[in-house]
Amino acid sequence: METATLLISCPDRKGILSEVTGFISKNNGNIINADQHIDSQKQIFFMRIEWDLNGFQIEKEKIKEAFKPIADKFHMDFSLHFSSEVQNVAIFVSKYDHCLYELLYRFKAGELKGNLKMVISNHEDLKPIAEMFGVPFFHFPKNKDNKLEVEKEELKILRENSIDLIILARYMQILSDNFVKQYRNRIINIHHSFLPAFVGAKPYHRAYERGVKIIGATSHYVTEELDQGPIIEQDVVRISHRDSVEDMIRKGRDLEKLVLARAVKWHLENKILVYGNKTVIFE
Amino acid sequence: METATLLISCPDRKGILSEVTGFISKNNGNIINADQHIDSQKQIFFMRIEWDLNGFQIEKEKIKEAFKPIADKFHMDFSLHFSSEVQNVAIFVSKYDHCLYELLYRFKAGELKGNLKMVISNHEDLKPIAEMFGVPFFHFPKNKDNKLEVEKEELKILRENSIDLIILARYMQILSDNFVKQYRNRIINIHHSFLPAFVGAKPYHRAYERGVKIIGATSHYVTEELDQGPIIEQDVVRISHRDSVEDMIRKGRDLEKLVLARAVKWHLENKILVYGNKTVIFE
Amino acid sequence: METATLLISCPDRKGILSEVTGFISKNNGNIINADQHIDSQKQIFFMRIEWDLNGFQIEKEKIKEAFKPIADKFHMDFSLHFSSEVQNVAIFVSKYDHCLYELLYRFKAGELKGNLKMVISNHEDLKPIAEMFGVPFFHFPKNKDNKLEVEKEELKILRENSIDLIILARYMQILSDNFVKQYRNRIINIHHSFLPAFVGAKPYHRAYERGVKIIGATSHYVTEELDQGPIIEQDVVRISHRDSVEDMIRKGRDLEKLVLARAVKWHLENKILVYGNKTVIFE
Amino acid sequence: METATLLISCPDRKGILSEVTGFISKNNGNIINADQHIDSQKQIFFMRIEWDLNGFQIEKEKIKEAFKPIADKFHMDFSLHFSSEVQNVAIFVSKYDHCLYELLYRFKAGELKGNLKMVISNHEDLKPIAEMFGVPFFHFPKNKDNKLEVEKEELKILRENSIDLIILARYMQILSDNFVKQYRNRIINIHHSFLPAFVGAKPYHRAYERGVKIIGATSHYVTEELDQGPIIEQDVVRISHRDSVEDMIRKGRDLEKLVLARAVKWHLENKILVYGNKTVIFE
Repeated sequence: METATLLISCPDRKGILSEVTGFISKNNGNIINADQHIDSQKQIFFMRIEWDLNGFQIEKEKIKEAFKPIADKFHMDFSLHFSSEVQNVAIFVSKYDHCLYELLYRFKAGELKGNLKMVISNHEDLKPIAEMFGVPFFHFPKNKDNKLEVEKEELKILRENSIDLIILARYMQILSDNFVKQYRNRIINIHHSFLPAFVGAKPYHRAYERGVKIIGATSHYVTEELDQGPIIEQDVVRISHRDSVEDMIRKGRDLEKLVLARAVKWHLENKILVYGNKTVIFE
Repeated sequence: METATLLISCPDRKGILSEVTGFISKNNGNIINADQHIDSQKQIFFMRIEWDLNGFQIEKEKIKEAFKPIADKFHMDFSLHFSSEVQNVAIFVSKYDHCLYELLYRFKAGELKGNLKMVISNHEDLKPIAEMFGVPFFHFPKNKDNKLEVEKEELKILRENSIDLIILARYMQILSDNFVKQYRNRIINIHHSFLPAFVGAKPYHRAYERGVKIIGATSHYVTEELDQGPIIEQDVVRISHRDSVEDMIRKGRDLEKLVLARAVKWHLENKILVYGNKTVIFE
Repeated sequence: METATLLISCPDRKGILSEVTGFISKNNGNIINADQHIDSQKQIFFMRIEWDLNGFQIEKEKIKEAFKPIADKFHMDFSLHFSSEVQNVAIFVSKYDHCLYELLYRFKAGELKGNLKMVISNHEDLKPIAEMFGVPFFHFPKNKDNKLEVEKEELKILRENSIDLIILARYMQILSDNFVKQYRNRIINIHHSFLPAFVGAKPYHRAYERGVKIIGATSHYVTEELDQGPIIEQDVVRISHRDSVEDMIRKGRDLEKLVLARAVKWHLENKILVYGNKTVIFE
Repeated sequence: METATLLISCPDRKGILSEVTGFISKNNGNIINADQHIDSQKQIFFMRIEWDLNGFQIEKEKIKEAFKPIADKFHMDFSLHFSSEVQNVAIFVSKYDHCLYELLYRFKAGELKGNLKMVISNHEDLKPIAEMFGVPFFHFPKNKDNKLEVEKEELKILRENSIDLIILARYMQILSDNFVKQYRNRIINIHHSFLPAFVGAKPYHRAYERGVKIIGATSHYVTEELDQGPIIEQDVVRISHRDSVEDMIRKGRDLEKLVLARAVKWHLENKILVYGNKTVIFE
């Protein structure tokens, strides 16, 4: 079954839901999923609607055009996606391998629906793992002096491969503002703390020092400000005074890989709408 | 703001969502919440839709009639509720007081929107608590021999007070089939285990014997079969070998009262649809 | 059964456990609970050991003296508690009633073992609730100008009643350094966020703005620095974009009251050891 | 650092803790971890104690003998383990690969401390995965008729490789009583439900039918009765009416692999004591 999905946000007004569903029904589309949300504080309407294209009376190529009058009427931001389109994906890593393994496994098992085109790293340590799974590995050594230079090469290879989504799977480098701008809301990072607690380096060490009783992990879109982008998913695990920093790092690994994998899955299935610095997840 | 809420279930077909939302839009209703679900296995469509009655062009009393043609077309089961209608509630208890306190507090605090009309018990122990909160308390001693007799009196007082919802807040008696039938899907019980594990008596003792590492509580609608009714909500807490049966009972109390309170809240806000032996929760 | 409990911390060295348990065994004490922990980073040894006094060959009054040579040998900080001693407790509140109800219920039900002597508030709103439970209520209106003055009166009444533990159950005033110093590690506060995230005012509003997917509550000992004291307990609940600030406040209430109640229970049962800015919980 | 670990269970009596710790102290051992538990219902004492062998005055080979008088005095069951001993492990699988991947990764990453000697399967599907990680794979096709025959061959290869622990990583065959007896408390299974709910086949389908709001996974030692062995670890995840059986299976996979990995880790680190049909986990 091929489906189309509309992601919509606009100022809240009477009649939006009726017009959008009417558009699909009149054209003989069978709605499979519809989910909407109204931010009543900011009066914004959000919607994700997915329908079966089989029997739909508008050709795929013309749906966008046909929908435009409704979009204009309600001042909508919208995007249209087809289940037949699959995104191209690049994973960035440094030396930690647990998130990389998890992603490689899930792409291979078909749980994550995307073309995993490459693994990029500033170190060579994880090359054998990428190769185990038959994914091309590119080594781009980086330091403060050559960072922008190297990023140019990275951007070139990403463009050449039409990469749609970049996953930072415990990538220990900060991307430049220029890099981030070119992949706005298309770079997902995993931060090993329960944001906004412990922004920046060594969150487990700081959690240990503070004596917290629960630790967490956060997946978010990358913005120019470190660890400040829209949060996609978070999860936590209980710890106690018995847990050393090493225990926390170990327990945290299991969180990190799951929290990252969930965010990637939702992104690839067009289930995330970003607005302001927040996300709506149409799970 | 006064609102109307439609709860709908029907065989899944093209166009339902569009017709229902169209009905509201054409009559100038402003949709505040819309949530739908399709059981794709059984091909059933479920919906909860709530709209502001201010400016709506159909009088409250005539909405049901006006909606009927759509309901008939799609073979819908539906119910219509108004935010101005508040349900009458009776709580049944025996000797444990933690759930009763929690409910009394939440009704008093306005978190649970219902008219709490009475507390009924087969013991007198909790009378002072009902009185603390100014709620009438009725004592109906019960045993195997007089059960049906006493139930008649209970049913009489419930009818006289137009009770819409009965909450069994750790009520240690099994209601007769006749009683249950008269309040189909309107009796909420709290069972102190993670159903379907440990149906029946002494679940904590049996959980202790089995050596489980997590215990739970389940709120459900009461049916003729013990602990087999549609589950509304469940929650769990981690335990260890260090926990005695007494510890489990104590930790379980905190689960029971929260899991029961959530179910009651959803019921009173018309957020639950029962189908077959399951629930759809439009939270 | 009357028991004695030793809480011990000292530099880690060989033989501590053996000497402490030997002390009890040689004097015919039956150990009921023994729990120890070594902070391997800082090389500190912590222990909680509880034994049955029935048949113990040292009189209660002389145990401290008898244990002193061992304490000196290992440079121990230690405290000795008897199950027959019950702490005197005061609850401070402002206008929110959910934590107060929860505590009043648990003291009344005997789950919290302490003499609840009074409720103190800067407002009169919750007086009827204290009275419902038969607990004396004292109203001390406070503002920036008279704060230190009023605190003197509060301290006076606390001293007169030999208060051992102060519980801030959503008390919306900051205590002076002088006040805090007099009840070092004996004032428990509930903060309505997952510390160290959202220190200070309006944490739910800030959590909403930040777009977090999980919210939390933290109970901690009060120190001179706002929300920086040793954390005793934390818990969290999952939220989504559907939750308004009001929903978060409502869901948070259920966390706050449980997280506070757990901390109070552990404190009253002498299960908490504070060291540096952290706690060891011998649960 | 090489350590020795004693796992002890015996009838509870005065003085056990003191004698055991005294034994280690007198012989100049430095205790690193000590954890004990008393089952006050059954009056059984359990202990795990680990000490640094550096400087310990009894040779490794003679510790057992030296400890025997104490063991006899208190009628102890005990086992002695050295950190230098590493267990040999075999993984049994059928067609599902998620648990296998997880275990292969964790053994490779050194998080699970054991010699992973082989993967055994009744199908050939997962052979490439074992080979990816360089682990020998043995294919033993099995059916009702040849089951006992094939098990003989399996037992032979297990013995030849001195396998200490067998992990059933979603192995879809029931082992014979004879097989189980030879590896009493040394076969760990993962069951894809929250036991004792949904014993046996197709637990996710049955959970879906029952309409539960939370699903779980359970790791346990295998006994002659299906899914009735001592529970080691359990975990759960929240679901809703929106989750199809397929969603439950997918969410369950993440539980299964973590719950199994935790049990294997504890077993390999000698942190589990089995008594009756329950476990004490000295985490």
